[in-house]
Amino acid sequence: MRTDPEALTGLLNWRARLLKLDGLSPVIGQDGALEWGTLADAPDDAELVFLGMEDGKACFAAVPANGAGGPAYADPAIWSAMRTLPPSDLATYGGARSLVDWHARHRFCARCGAATRLAKGGWQRDCPICEAQHFPRTDPVTIMLVEHDGQLLLGRQPRFPERMYSALAGFVEPGETIEEAVAREVHEEAGIRVNAVEYVASQPWPFPSQLMIGCYCTCDDPAITIDRTELDDARWFSREELEAARDAGHEGTAELIFPQRSAIAHNLVTWWLGR
Amino acid sequence: MRTDPEALTGLLNWRARLLKLDGLSPVIGQDGALEWGTLADAPDDAELVFLGMEDGKACFAAVPANGAGGPAYADPAIWSAMRTLPPSDLATYGGARSLVDWHARHRFCARCGAATRLAKGGWQRDCPICEAQHFPRTDPVTIMLVEHDGQLLLGRQPRFPERMYSALAGFVEPGETIEEAVAREVHEEAGIRVNAVEYVASQPWPFPSQLMIGCYCTCDDPAITIDRTELDDARWFSREELEAARDAGHEGTAELIFPQRSAIAHNLVTWWLGR
Repeated sequence: MRTDPEALTGLLNWRARLLKLDGLSPVIGQDGALEWGTLADAPDDAELVFLGMEDGKACFAAVPANGAGGPAYADPAIWSAMRTLPPSDLATYGGARSLVDWHARHRFCARCGAATRLAKGGWQRDCPICEAQHFPRTDPVTIMLVEHDGQLLLGRQPRFPERMYSALAGFVEPGETIEEAVAREVHEEAGIRVNAVEYVASQPWPFPSQLMIGCYCTCDDPAITIDRTELDDARWFSREELEAARDAGHEGTAELIFPQRSAIAHNLVTWWLGR
Repeated sequence: MRTDPEALTGLLNWRARLLKLDGLSPVIGQDGALEWGTLADAPDDAELVFLGMEDGKACFAAVPANGAGGPAYADPAIWSAMRTLPPSDLATYGGARSLVDWHARHRFCARCGAATRLAKGGWQRDCPICEAQHFPRTDPVTIMLVEHDGQLLLGRQPRFPERMYSALAGFVEPGETIEEAVAREVHEEAGIRVNAVEYVASQPWPFPSQLMIGCYCTCDDPAITIDRTELDDARWFSREELEAARDAGHEGTAELIFPQRSAIAHNLVTWWLGR
């Protein structure tokens, strides 16, 4: 439908639903689910992004005045929403947030500097001057478990709450495979050379638009050299330490707070513990 | 090194190597390898991208006046280079091409429209007006084998040479996992519902900046409904047909030209035939 301008225009009626957003944050109703309004709730000049059909109704979100200012992980409302929203609502919110944030931060043509226009229901922006087409971006990020002698390598970024450790991660760069990105990232951040890399699972992460690619690998030499510009600390955790931290919930143990449930690191470590 | 401006400036000397490019195309020497010059070969006002160190020498590429105009797959010189360049040179060229092409097409700030400046050795652009930072993009694309009853589903895009079929493929969209992108793409293009998706391999594809994520899945119902806006044709191929086409080389059989060696589709089908 988004490639058919007439069909899209036909959807912009009083039956359509508008995802309620507070800036980029979700608006959550009494029932704990996302709140929806009608197109009448959008500002007259708002750019509308077509999210898809649900129950026969077209769903839209309005591009806010401003995109993400600071890092989303600093916003407690986001973490709280991720703990409470049903998975289908989280998926809807995540996709919508990525899209409207991208539009809010990409109103101009990167090729010539002119103002661009939303196209194809918000899955494209067109430049009326140089005719360049721009597409929402999704940035592949590798996130990896490294195992040695029955222990897992986890690290903590300076921004993490105290005692929280998680899987190392980093963007895939131009010219790399997923496996090469994993090997480079572990070497850069922890000075460790890994063996064959195995894919485990993926997850979209809309802060602002990552595709998290979860991997697993082993290494022969466990000696860690920490890159202090990236990490506060990195160390090996035993199965017992990880199980205790998982079972201790949000508060964690004296040593470790387990990655929180909405992050793929939680699933990766849980997958490893269950092997 | 790219995050250390002083170290970077120190590399810009007469020892440094400059990757020779003809626009965005590789320049190949008598020995069949990439040609390198010195920084003196770059225009005085050229923006330089730091590619990394090799044999103790810093390697750079200059951003050309123009980025990619049309699709690179239409350029026979590119396909010829991919058949003849050694793998390490292909990797160097691919990474360099993605980067300089991105710079040439992103000289302005998408947030405010101002002219931006290359930063961090070309792994970033900074806006001097609104202070936005922009990063080279890498777009994750799923490419998938679908199997039913010992046969593989392949399709042909309208731009393909006659008789050439390849694996279906499509961009991962905001809010999707890799597995969801595979399922959506096969359903959109061929009307087929797939079962559990398995990751096989990945490959960077610098035309302009894709990360190809190769997957494998099966389906229960082989009835094909072709999306004619995306595909000319899609059909099931037997193991015998695929083996015959692979063995027939560039010319293919009367039925099928096998995907060419530099494309991940070649490796995926070869992987499947070898199972």
